[in-house]
Amino acid sequence: MLRKYAIIGTGALGGFYGARLQRAGCEVHFLLHSDYEHVREHGLICQSKDGDFTLPKVNAYRDVREMPACDVVIVGLKTTQNHLLKDLLPPLVKGNTFVLLMQNGLGGEELVGEIVGRERVIGGLCFLCSNKNGPGHIHHVDYGLVTLGDYATRGVTPRMQAVANDLSAAGIPSQLVEDLALGRWQKLIWNIPYNGLSVILDSTTDTLMNFPATRQLCEAIMWEIVADARACGVLVPDEVVPKMLDYTDKMKPYRTSMKIDFDERRPMEVEAIFGNPLRAATKAGAKSPILETLYAQLKFIDGKNSGRNSGTGVSPVTYK
Amino acid sequence: MLRKYAIIGTGALGGFYGARLQRAGCEVHFLLHSDYEHVREHGLICQSKDGDFTLPKVNAYRDVREMPACDVVIVGLKTTQNHLLKDLLPPLVKGNTFVLLMQNGLGGEELVGEIVGRERVIGGLCFLCSNKNGPGHIHHVDYGLVTLGDYATRGVTPRMQAVANDLSAAGIPSQLVEDLALGRWQKLIWNIPYNGLSVILDSTTDTLMNFPATRQLCEAIMWEIVADARACGVLVPDEVVPKMLDYTDKMKPYRTSMKIDFDERRPMEVEAIFGNPLRAATKAGAKSPILETLYAQLKFIDGKNSGRNSGTGVSPVTYK
Repeated sequence: MLRKYAIIGTGALGGFYGARLQRAGCEVHFLLHSDYEHVREHGLICQSKDGDFTLPKVNAYRDVREMPACDVVIVGLKTTQNHLLKDLLPPLVKGNTFVLLMQNGLGGEELVGEIVGRERVIGGLCFLCSNKNGPGHIHHVDYGLVTLGDYATRGVTPRMQAVANDLSAAGIPSQLVEDLALGRWQKLIWNIPYNGLSVILDSTTDTLMNFPATRQLCEAIMWEIVADARACGVLVPDEVVPKMLDYTDKMKPYRTSMKIDFDERRPMEVEAIFGNPLRAATKAGAKSPILETLYAQLKFIDGKNSGRNSGTGVSPVTYK
Repeated sequence: MLRKYAIIGTGALGGFYGARLQRAGCEVHFLLHSDYEHVREHGLICQSKDGDFTLPKVNAYRDVREMPACDVVIVGLKTTQNHLLKDLLPPLVKGNTFVLLMQNGLGGEELVGEIVGRERVIGGLCFLCSNKNGPGHIHHVDYGLVTLGDYATRGVTPRMQAVANDLSAAGIPSQLVEDLALGRWQKLIWNIPYNGLSVILDSTTDTLMNFPATRQLCEAIMWEIVADARACGVLVPDEVVPKMLDYTDKMKPYRTSMKIDFDERRPMEVEAIFGNPLRAATKAGAKSPILETLYAQLKFIDGKNSGRNSGTGVSPVTYK
C-alpha cells in the first residue's frame, strides 16, 4: 500500500521526490509559494537523466490549512527557511503522520521534534543533483540516493522501511541507517570542508584537492569534525576520513550546494552545516578552532552577500 | 655625522625613506630595476603629506657591484623578493656595514644573518602608508614611524641610535626597542588577523570590526598568536590584545598591505607573515589551528591570483 505524501517546499529537491512519488502512484499534495499559480495551471515538468516526464495535474496548495491529512510530510525546504516550520507543520500532523526531514546539516530534527513531537520525526540525507529551471520545472541532473534514519528510535523502523518501499517504487534508491546521528555527522565530515572552502575560496572540489595546502586543510577539518562527533557521543570510525578524501578525489569537479546558493545570492545554510555542529561540539566540551574560523568567515560572507555587514560607508585609505 | 646609505628596492617604501634621507643631507645610493633609466634621467619625486619635494639628481644603480661601500644597507624589498638577497647583499657589505631590514613578518633577519652574519643585522618595522604612482614617483599618504631593533644583541645599540638620528634629521619619527623579536611578534598580532582576513574576506578593517563574528575571530586569532609568541620564548603581555582591538576600532577604514598586493595581483607576503610564524610556533611545540587555516587559505588564494592552482580544466557539474 502506497502512502499519502505532503511536500513542504516544492523546489529542486521536494519537487523532484514528490513528482517521482506521484508518478509511481502515490497521492501527493504539494505546498507551493511563488510557483503556485503556474503549477496549479500546468502541473510539474521533471527533466531527468532517468527520463523526462510531465505531471499535467498535481494537487497544489499555498496554505497548509487546505491540505489533507497525510501519512508522510516531506520537508524539502532549505534550512534557511526553518523558521516557517512552526506554522507549516502543526496543521498537517494528525494521527500517525510523521515528518521526513530532507535537509542538510544538524539541528533540523530537534527543531521539528519540538514542533510535532520527537516520535514523529525521521531524517533523510539526500545525495541529489537537481535544479529548478523555472516555475514547476525541475531538472534532475544526477544521483538521488536518500539515506533514511529514525530520529527518536535507533534501528530500522517499519516506517523507514515503508518510505523506502515507496521510494523504490518511484525508482529512487535509498539506504536505511540504524543511527541517524552517525549519518548526519558523517555527511558533515564531507560538507564542512567542501561546502565551506568552496565558498570562502571560490572554488570547486577538484581545485581544493589538487592544491596541497587546501587538501591538507580539508583533511585537518575532517579530523576536527570526527573529534567533535565523538565528543557528542557519535562514534565515527577513523576510516571515514581517508574514504572521504579518496571519494572526493574520484568525483567529477563538483560545485557544492553552498557555493550554488552563494553564486545565486541565496542565503547559505551556515547555521545548519556550521553553527549547529559547532554549538553541539562546544556544549559537549570539544574545542573546534577550525570550524569556528570557517563559521565566522561564512557568516561574514553570507552577511555581505545579503548586505548585512557593510562597512562604515567611509572609503578605505590604502596603506603599505 | 650623517651616515651613507644604500637602498635595496627603491619602491614605495625604500624610495620614500631614501629620498627623505638624501634630502636631509645623507649620501644615498639607490638600487633600481625597472625604473632605473627613468630615475637616472629624472631623479625622484616625493609627493608627501609632509610637503612635496623633488630630487632631480640621485645616485641610481642597477647592479650592486657598481655601488660604493655604505654604512647602512636598507632592504626595502617585499619579502616575496627575498630570494634575491643572497646575490644582492654580499657585494655591499664591507667593514662596519650593517643591514637595516625594513620588512614585514618573521624570518627576514635570520635569512639576512645567514648571508652577511647575524651581527650585521638590524630590523625595522615600518608603519607607513605610501604608494608608487609611476617610475620614480612616490606618494607618501600617511604615517612613517620606524621601529628599530637590533637582531643579534638585546638592548638599544649605538648603531640603532645612529640610524634614529639620521631619520630624525629627515623628519621621520622612530622608536627604539630593546627586543626586536617582541616587536616583530606584536606586529604579527595585528598583521595576521587583518592582513589575512582582509584578503580572504575581501574586506577592510572597519568591516571586519563591525561584524560581530569576524571581530570575535580577530580576537581569537590574536590570542593564538600571543600563545605562539610565548611558545617561542617571546613574552607578549596580555594587554596587547585589547589594545590592538581598540586601536583598530579607532583607525580610519584601512586596506591592508596584503589586500593591496592582492588587488594589484602582486604576490602576497604569505610566507613572511603566516608561514614563518607558523613554522616557528610548530617547532616550539605550539598548536596553531587558526593560523594554519589562514595560511592554507592564503596560499591557495595567492596561487590562484598567479595561476598556480587551476583545476582539472573540466567544467564543474552543479549539485544540490
